[in-house]
Amino acid sequence: MAGNSILLDAPSVLSACQQSYFALQVRKTRSKYKVTPPAVSGSPEFERIFHAQTNCVEFYPIFMITLWTAGWYFNQVFDTCLSLVYIYVCHQYFWGYSEAAKKRITVFRLSLGVLALLTVLSTVGIANSFLDEYLDFNVAKKLRHF
Amino acid sequence: MAGNSILLDAPSVLSACQQSYFALQVRKTRSKYKVTPPAVSGSPEFERIFHAQTNCVEFYPIFMITLWTAGWYFNQVFDTCLSLVYIYVCHQYFWGYSEAAKKRITVFRLSLGVLALLTVLSTVGIANSFLDEYLDFNVAKKLRHF
Amino acid sequence: MAGNSILLDAPSVLSACQQSYFALQVRKTRSKYKVTPPAVSGSPEFERIFHAQTNCVEFYPIFMITLWTAGWYFNQVFDTCLSLVYIYVCHQYFWGYSEAAKKRITVFRLSLGVLALLTVLSTVGIANSFLDEYLDFNVAKKLRHF
Repeated sequence: MAGNSILLDAPSVLSACQQSYFALQVRKTRSKYKVTPPAVSGSPEFERIFHAQTNCVEFYPIFMITLWTAGWYFNQVFDTCLSLVYIYVCHQYFWGYSEAAKKRITVFRLSLGVLALLTVLSTVGIANSFLDEYLDFNVAKKLRHF
Repeated sequence: MAGNSILLDAPSVLSACQQSYFALQVRKTRSKYKVTPPAVSGSPEFERIFHAQTNCVEFYPIFMITLWTAGWYFNQVFDTCLSLVYIYVCHQYFWGYSEAAKKRITVFRLSLGVLALLTVLSTVGIANSFLDEYLDFNVAKKLRHF
Repeated sequence: MAGNSILLDAPSVLSACQQSYFALQVRKTRSKYKVTPPAVSGSPEFERIFHAQTNCVEFYPIFMITLWTAGWYFNQVFDTCLSLVYIYVCHQYFWGYSEAAKKRITVFRLSLGVLALLTVLSTVGIANSFLDEYLDFNVAKKLRHF
């Protein structure tokens, strides 16, 4: 496997690091505002950062699935660039939200946009492979004809 | 990789779309019942749909792992059918729960059943590959003998 | 794929089983302390076990990503041992936390240590493959020279 998917593994590990970093930041904020676990409420600052992290955790498996399928069936280089954009947007979202609930909305839409683009790329790539394998109809080849 | 696991990639992307859809529904319900983030309680309707989504998020990585291992070590076609059943059951669970807390119980058991079946298939497939590779004992071959 | 990554699939399925087991334990505790869903608070015993599970769910995708990349780019046998340690530590964390909030701290640090080690191994492995493939500079070979 190694080698032919290295451009997908690097952003995967990078985003895993980011998720760990978010989890540790939540933990730090928790002790800063003295919210003793298992409580998850009490201070609005803590609630905001906690909610920001929960949202990132929620979208993380979706990001991973679409990243890998888009990479396998579409284009690895373009996919890697998109994933770096997503990681950066996540960073902005997390820190924006932890400052003020209002700041998250634009960035959140941007992150959804990146995910939607990845999903579209995966779907197109899979549909193309499907047509090619089972119905022997290669779209990329047909397009080159024109 | 593309091609030989296309039957696993299609349901993966489909279920990723479903997860995004659930997350957006929660967001919609949140604004409908005016539960301002970061709060996660206040309206029983919102709490139900939020809890339904949290449960789906929780089981999503488990579903992905068992789907892929069952597909690699057992049978892709059967596995794909099972995954479509699971996605349908999740849909039922999410909407059933969002209507009434009682409605979720039967569907939840069904979804656990599908997951358990996927886990059993993965374990059997892995055990078989393990015996074949390290102890040179092929169960499938032995069975064909009888 | 089957065969060459069997040592990574076995711990993946095992940890998926563990996650399901945790989810079912939370459900059991919920009915034991009569915390009717969708509520997630009310009894400190339930809150502790719920929070323990939430934390495990949070770190699960990170564990999976680093497990697979460390396995692909570094060493599968060493990686499998580390993953078994992580599964055991998770078990200790879950039950320790469900007994008393204090008991979780040492074990939690241990689990972060294992994850950090997996991340370092992945990063080293990926960096090595990257140098090898794009810059034709093989670190392992250079080290063998000395």
